Amino acid sequence: MIDIAQLKSSQSDFWQQLDKTLAWESVSDEQVFNTVNGILNDVKKRGDTAVVEYTNKFDRMTVGGMSELEIPKSRLDESLKKIPSAQREALEKAAARVRAYAEHQKIESWDYTEDDGTFLGQQVTPMDRAGLYVPGGKAAYPSSVLMNAIPAKVAGVPELIMVVPTPDGEVNDLVFAAAAIAGVDRVFAIGGAQAVAALAYGTETIPQVDKIVGPGNIYVATAKRMVFGAAGIDMIAGPSEICVVCDGKTDADWIAMDLFSQAEHDEDAQSILVCPDADYIEQVKTSIEKLIKEMPRAEIIKKSLIERGVIIEVQDIDEAIKVANYIAPEHLELSIDNARERAKEIRHAGAIFIGRYTAEALGDYCAGPNHVLPTSRTARFSSPLGVYDFQKRSSLIDCSAEGASELAKVASVLAHGEGLTAHARSAEYRIKD
Amino acid sequence: MIDIAQLKSSQSDFWQQLDKTLAWESVSDEQVFNTVNGILNDVKKRGDTAVVEYTNKFDRMTVGGMSELEIPKSRLDESLKKIPSAQREALEKAAARVRAYAEHQKIESWDYTEDDGTFLGQQVTPMDRAGLYVPGGKAAYPSSVLMNAIPAKVAGVPELIMVVPTPDGEVNDLVFAAAAIAGVDRVFAIGGAQAVAALAYGTETIPQVDKIVGPGNIYVATAKRMVFGAAGIDMIAGPSEICVVCDGKTDADWIAMDLFSQAEHDEDAQSILVCPDADYIEQVKTSIEKLIKEMPRAEIIKKSLIERGVIIEVQDIDEAIKVANYIAPEHLELSIDNARERAKEIRHAGAIFIGRYTAEALGDYCAGPNHVLPTSRTARFSSPLGVYDFQKRSSLIDCSAEGASELAKVASVLAHGEGLTAHARSAEYRIKD
Repeated sequence: MIDIAQLKSSQSDFWQQLDKTLAWESVSDEQVFNTVNGILNDVKKRGDTAVVEYTNKFDRMTVGGMSELEIPKSRLDESLKKIPSAQREALEKAAARVRAYAEHQKIESWDYTEDDGTFLGQQVTPMDRAGLYVPGGKAAYPSSVLMNAIPAKVAGVPELIMVVPTPDGEVNDLVFAAAAIAGVDRVFAIGGAQAVAALAYGTETIPQVDKIVGPGNIYVATAKRMVFGAAGIDMIAGPSEICVVCDGKTDADWIAMDLFSQAEHDEDAQSILVCPDADYIEQVKTSIEKLIKEMPRAEIIKKSLIERGVIIEVQDIDEAIKVANYIAPEHLELSIDNARERAKEIRHAGAIFIGRYTAEALGDYCAGPNHVLPTSRTARFSSPLGVYDFQKRSSLIDCSAEGASELAKVASVLAHGEGLTAHARSAEYRIKD
Repeated sequence: MIDIAQLKSSQSDFWQQLDKTLAWESVSDEQVFNTVNGILNDVKKRGDTAVVEYTNKFDRMTVGGMSELEIPKSRLDESLKKIPSAQREALEKAAARVRAYAEHQKIESWDYTEDDGTFLGQQVTPMDRAGLYVPGGKAAYPSSVLMNAIPAKVAGVPELIMVVPTPDGEVNDLVFAAAAIAGVDRVFAIGGAQAVAALAYGTETIPQVDKIVGPGNIYVATAKRMVFGAAGIDMIAGPSEICVVCDGKTDADWIAMDLFSQAEHDEDAQSILVCPDADYIEQVKTSIEKLIKEMPRAEIIKKSLIERGVIIEVQDIDEAIKVANYIAPEHLELSIDNARERAKEIRHAGAIFIGRYTAEALGDYCAGPNHVLPTSRTARFSSPLGVYDFQKRSSLIDCSAEGASELAKVASVLAHGEGLTAHARSAEYRIKD
């Protein structure tokens, strides 16, 4: 039996218990920190030579120089031709939808001119160069290549550099095919902290990028955190979570499988069901027991559900929404009546899957919105990865002689108030006689 | 004589030398880290009691409980009445302009519906609660209160909590007046790492916030970096910089004073002049020697110019723009002909001050755009503080039965390709028979 924790919103210590359930401390290991720190400094100092050495060592390769680690575009196209046509079509359909949605996200420059001729605005530009980290081996997801690369290209980033380790020389054709479809510009077969360092600082062969995105193991995540400043980074993701709010009218098998789809990622993943119907909760539990047998990743799912899963019985849907807003989940399914209207009451969630047909899995692959989403309650203050993550803004100020003169009077008073005389004088020069 | 470093773009090692000039390593001090770590854990565990103890200790106060450290709104209004009317008017004019500009930055929700009825969109919401750190003592700038608080209120953040230490009980009426004008909701007289911890984790009295913004010393900056995840943070600012591109036709005194206005902030601040006219460069140097005598903060200015300042002689304005884009400066003045047109060629800068009348000081106080800007070349990937920093996005996906069925087929192929059977099954349940 899969013994999932259960809470009732009516119990007196409900919010405390919920807090405990949600708590997640990322492991910050001194040994990892020191290892990564050493690699970063080494790559900073010795460039290509260091990257090649670490790659030969960690990925069990035997290359003589960095040039051997660049994967030509022709090799990506080869993978695209090699994979089954059903997979190629699925990747292309997914890419087209992700691109169409991303086009809506582009932020545009704007400006306005005041009566005295003073011009104000905001100029939006893409980054010059972005780096995309893709894990090697089993954790390599082609969908993740699409989700990270496409927003960068839609933003207009001229050069997108992908790094993906190829341990023992093993390549993943689906990942290469996805890179070809997404329009990745250059690919290097490197990984780990050494790849992050190469992208952040640049080497003789690998150009420095402005931002590094993409998932990775603890070494990669630690390296990203440490290079922040030399380059921008995307969020540091915690374990993936789903919160399903269900009114009890969706097929219980569907809901059980939606919970599984989160739990199968890894043992730390969290699946939460919020429901006002005690009988229905029992039905979902029955479905869980029945369906687990058919799952190849049953052991991971079980461990995730037992250690991190929780079923919350609430009074009604109003309360379910209150709970969901508190959780601020990465993925929120609203498997309820009138779901689209109720979605407006959600203040914090990475993505909202509205209605009984909208399984999270559809969004993970191909609905259009990005699957890189804020985890661990960070949806309180962060957004899904998007085109805007590869764009930035510059303020524009062009004062007319008249406008400058008026503003200078205000600036002068405030600068003197702050004891900054040079500020005041610089402004006062622009006051008309 | 103020001996400012000079570079010529024609010298063979120009880019290397420029890199050296720009290099800035923020001090990461183990002792600071340990002190801050201790305070954070203590406040997390003991809440109000710990905050009161640290405040009594570090700020030499003698309060008995947290309630004594809350500053009522009436006290802010009192400051607003107390300050000279010229200062009040200047603050109000600045606030109105910052607010007007900020209104243009608001990001809006959007959605679209596909032919089969599938609905996709992005829902934009403000954070529930934001925290604003304001330094105490001499580094307390009322302009900074306006610049940090107004975007949060324009974003629609319902509760904005300001913390400002009052060492020895000393308060800054200009800062309180600015808080009143900006619409800050609650103020606590606390500072340092203990204030950051209180905002990030919450205490019995101080509610947990979703994001913490505002400048602070090394303890505050370290604390912000460490609480990131529990709350969002704004950028960690390095020393302030200005890059003035001048064609040699602006009054040399004006340019000298613009360079001073940056240098007077602190000794680490960086002032850069980029100019194709060797004679004009000499004129600016003469102005510098003449004007420095009139500066109350002459010692700071001198040290900043000698240790971090640089004058770069380029071939022409085209090259000046290339150099400016490489520097990606926090503040960029284009004191040149046809400046507005040339501004379009700037790919990386926090704010662009266009034309000879637009002194940086006007933007620092009252032009409208925010003065919280990316430093140390981070304009390559970051933006000015803005309304968008207090808003976040949730993806919306509402599949029609028809749409879900089609998407599920694509998702199924990709999920199987990634070995994620529960994802595939969850999608397949939504395929119509």
